[in-house]
Amino acid sequence: MNTATAQLINATDLLKHWQGHRALTRRVIEAFPEKELFEYSVSGMRSFSGMVMELLGIGAPGIKEIATGNIGTLNEHFEGINKKEQLLQLWDESTETINTYWAQIPEEKFAEEITVFGLYKGTTWSSIFYFIDNEIHHRAQAYVYLRSLGITPPFFWDRA
Amino acid sequence: MNTATAQLINATDLLKHWQGHRALTRRVIEAFPEKELFEYSVSGMRSFSGMVMELLGIGAPGIKEIATGNIGTLNEHFEGINKKEQLLQLWDESTETINTYWAQIPEEKFAEEITVFGLYKGTTWSSIFYFIDNEIHHRAQAYVYLRSLGITPPFFWDRA
Repeated sequence: MNTATAQLINATDLLKHWQGHRALTRRVIEAFPEKELFEYSVSGMRSFSGMVMELLGIGAPGIKEIATGNIGTLNEHFEGINKKEQLLQLWDESTETINTYWAQIPEEKFAEEITVFGLYKGTTWSSIFYFIDNEIHHRAQAYVYLRSLGITPPFFWDRA
Repeated sequence: MNTATAQLINATDLLKHWQGHRALTRRVIEAFPEKELFEYSVSGMRSFSGMVMELLGIGAPGIKEIATGNIGTLNEHFEGINKKEQLLQLWDESTETINTYWAQIPEEKFAEEITVFGLYKGTTWSSIFYFIDNEIHHRAQAYVYLRSLGITPPFFWDRA
């Protein structure tokens, strides 16, 4: 950690930044009524639960793969998940998985070229930024869903 | 740049990452029909032009302020802007302003505590991440607007 002050951002801060976003995404999941979480969308898009399953398929499996070097398969579909509580439990399990495997990624790994899920080429940092950016992107779509349901979404800037 | 290999991400790559997002946001502006860009929204939210003016008020002025240390005023409204071409021109001017002032931010500045627009406390990096995240957030809402207009938005992953 002696080099931390020379870093634009260090790995600990980036994890905290992401988990702050993930805490907000969890509150957006919670804000949906049970039925609308799984069935509602605007303009024929996916339900928010469908998007959350994509995020579950990318985040924790992606970090596990980066940490271990074992290439996994991208799976964005989870069978038998049709309750908000199930989705929140998977979300919380992902939180722990990300924390566990993140701690096993050496800082020098972030600049290395990798191929996530055997498909997507980039650096470690650009891959992780993609995971985060993609989460922000889909969560923001859920903000529109919530507004169209007459529900006020959580504040975007609140990441506690 | 001798320390670049030890960086999780360096300033040059972060700028390129953001400008990639900004290029995508520009294509989303372009994808809107003129009238709908300024008048259309879902569920009583702002038009996408209103959101773009917020982004214009934050991005380039924020980076100029960080580079110069001169605290500015947050201005998210632009008078007399009612054509797509005007909005795109402001966008392109912001692109140049960001590039110009970004080059004047020393790398050690990114970890420093700052107060952007005299209002928002954070580090330099967390402030810039907020600018980027907020852009992704609002642009994603425009994706829903476009879908509800029957228009296919640009690919999220295309940042060229």
